[in-house]
Amino acid sequence: MANINENYRKLPAGYLFPEIGRRTRTFAEANPDARIIRLGIGDVTLPLAPAVVEALRGAAEELGRPDGMRGYGPDQGYEFLLDAIREHDYAVRGVALERDEIFVSDGSKQDSGNIQEIFGAACRVAVTDPVYPVYVDTNVMAGRSGNADAQGRYAGMLYLAATEANGFVPDPPSEPADLAYLCTPNNPTGAVASRESLERWVAWARDHRAVIIFDAAYDAFIQDPALPRSIYEIDGARECAIEMRSFSKRAGFTGLRCAYTVVPKKLFGNTAGGERVALNGLWARRQATKFNGVPYPIQRAAEAVFSPEGRKQTGEQVAFYMENARLLRESLTAGGFHVFGGVHAPYIWMRTPRELDSWAFFDQLLERCHVVGTPGSGFGPAGEGYFRLSAFNSRENVEEAIARIRGAFS
Amino acid sequence: MANINENYRKLPAGYLFPEIGRRTRTFAEANPDARIIRLGIGDVTLPLAPAVVEALRGAAEELGRPDGMRGYGPDQGYEFLLDAIREHDYAVRGVALERDEIFVSDGSKQDSGNIQEIFGAACRVAVTDPVYPVYVDTNVMAGRSGNADAQGRYAGMLYLAATEANGFVPDPPSEPADLAYLCTPNNPTGAVASRESLERWVAWARDHRAVIIFDAAYDAFIQDPALPRSIYEIDGARECAIEMRSFSKRAGFTGLRCAYTVVPKKLFGNTAGGERVALNGLWARRQATKFNGVPYPIQRAAEAVFSPEGRKQTGEQVAFYMENARLLRESLTAGGFHVFGGVHAPYIWMRTPRELDSWAFFDQLLERCHVVGTPGSGFGPAGEGYFRLSAFNSRENVEEAIARIRGAFS
Repeated sequence: MANINENYRKLPAGYLFPEIGRRTRTFAEANPDARIIRLGIGDVTLPLAPAVVEALRGAAEELGRPDGMRGYGPDQGYEFLLDAIREHDYAVRGVALERDEIFVSDGSKQDSGNIQEIFGAACRVAVTDPVYPVYVDTNVMAGRSGNADAQGRYAGMLYLAATEANGFVPDPPSEPADLAYLCTPNNPTGAVASRESLERWVAWARDHRAVIIFDAAYDAFIQDPALPRSIYEIDGARECAIEMRSFSKRAGFTGLRCAYTVVPKKLFGNTAGGERVALNGLWARRQATKFNGVPYPIQRAAEAVFSPEGRKQTGEQVAFYMENARLLRESLTAGGFHVFGGVHAPYIWMRTPRELDSWAFFDQLLERCHVVGTPGSGFGPAGEGYFRLSAFNSRENVEEAIARIRGAFS
Repeated sequence: MANINENYRKLPAGYLFPEIGRRTRTFAEANPDARIIRLGIGDVTLPLAPAVVEALRGAAEELGRPDGMRGYGPDQGYEFLLDAIREHDYAVRGVALERDEIFVSDGSKQDSGNIQEIFGAACRVAVTDPVYPVYVDTNVMAGRSGNADAQGRYAGMLYLAATEANGFVPDPPSEPADLAYLCTPNNPTGAVASRESLERWVAWARDHRAVIIFDAAYDAFIQDPALPRSIYEIDGARECAIEMRSFSKRAGFTGLRCAYTVVPKKLFGNTAGGERVALNGLWARRQATKFNGVPYPIQRAAEAVFSPEGRKQTGEQVAFYMENARLLRESLTAGGFHVFGGVHAPYIWMRTPRELDSWAFFDQLLERCHVVGTPGSGFGPAGEGYFRLSAFNSRENVEEAIARIRGAFS
């Protein structure tokens, strides 16, 4: 008799984005003339950069020629892409990585969801709150939690509140934890960790032999060159951190799917018997067994992001979205809202006006302004009373959304 | 302190294909003039079909236009691809599927490796022997086994020997099992299950409330239209089977990555408390949490496989490989070898000559014929004394390999 994985039953029935979609559809059907502006899901809107399109097209034609056909690629990614990553994402920041410390994948969602598989079932997991739900849900599915309480906090997991008081960047916990997920620049709060904050995290992880899962999917949006983009810019991080980066937001790859994860060779986990085991080898084994590489044309497209034209074109896309973020932040602040984020990240995190709860504000914003955002409580209990707006949209839509929100709520 | 998943330590240090690669490289370095013919790994060699190239190129250009850009796609795949699958892979065989019973993915390796996640940790797993290693290794990693014995059989798993006596298609076990992996046409033996055999499997699964994981990655190579291509052609299979299919071998997608899994809505698993839970919902939740869809250009390329030109062009590719298989089978048989498979599958499964063990024959074949194949023992203990040759190569290389093998071993 085939029994199911009953950990799945601990998850709430409704997930955040489908619920947003459902309420939006219901409203749109009842109000067919409303021009709805979507600042909810963090999805890119600009077309692919010409250098990326050209690389995709070129790879397609290459695979159609007898001398250009390629089947299975190398497990961890083609050398041309690994070397471009090493040079442009790391060497320029003073970080030297070896090729086989990098694992090209089809998304940071996948990597941040799968990475827990190489750790023991008894590991205690720490997350910031609010949090990208994948970190939590994948550990719940794997049995690293009890049931959720009324606020949605799972028993056995450690929640670190990201609040106005700590600038939405929590310090390491005083309680023990074995794995800690950090996302910076942060989804959903738009906050970015300072060098000093990361130094405290690295020191904590080394002291406790904990592992930091460092999700830097939004690193390209950091505007201040003095801020670390990689956790490996912090001394000692190679002995305690796994890092994830993505092409999704910086180059419009949400529909193309390419990302990578770095597992340094100096990083070890422990066995119950006290042995130290290299996590690089475990992740290599995991990927070799359950993954078959990113499509060749997509890897060529990712390589093109690093070409001179690609860097220029995708840099302009990032700048465009960040100008949207600036407009949202400054105009809503001027309109009397309490607004955070949006300086080094494409997300605005705002207090809901009039002390509305997050979903009540969602409904009012939809009904009165025809604007879709994301309720902060969808990211965790500490997100209650907050709301996320995404800067991924056209300039016209962003300006129109600002005008509508200010008109209705200022 | 971050402990590792110690189940990984039960896996053998060397995996099959890296070991083949290592021995082949060593030989090539010592013998730089040898023209090595690779019939080992089952990777396609013909260039992509023109219809597929055209679809990839068209999608790339579309994504470069403001009105053509698409970001995140639907979790389970675009409707255009789901509908093409429903029509061309199922309706033509009399099987009606709903859209949301199909989950488009980036590979059958991934799906057959991940599917175990939705089942309970205590499920007993049955596999045929020899077996595609992913079925076994992913269950070992998830803790559904003890250690391996000297022959490589993991404690707690049930191995069903595929032998000459049963035509390499084992019957269902008399012992209880909860999950059973069936691959037909089979990798590595090239055997195909008859309708009667599948009827026995479905009856067994229904009697025991077991679930069959049916991997039909090679269905396009079945030559006899009377043989089932889908397990859903068997009455009652929707209540006991999950099916996987792939574009990898039928359309040269090993480097493009597209496949799909069918989880019928009539299929249920059990809770310890005796409730029945729909597996479709569990798999949907798993994919929504840990996967983000197949790249849009790849889904357009897969759709093109079903166009009239795509069907014709990829059908010719399959026919080309199957002619290779026929040549291997008939010529080696005529040369005195005991040869199986190769009629409805692109794999030849042969007894090693002179009762050599599988790796000894691998080494001799490499040294004397400069031909690379796959040792049967790499797929499981019952593969010892057998050897797999792949039909994926040029006609010239296949004919040359046959001549060399017959010259050296007949």
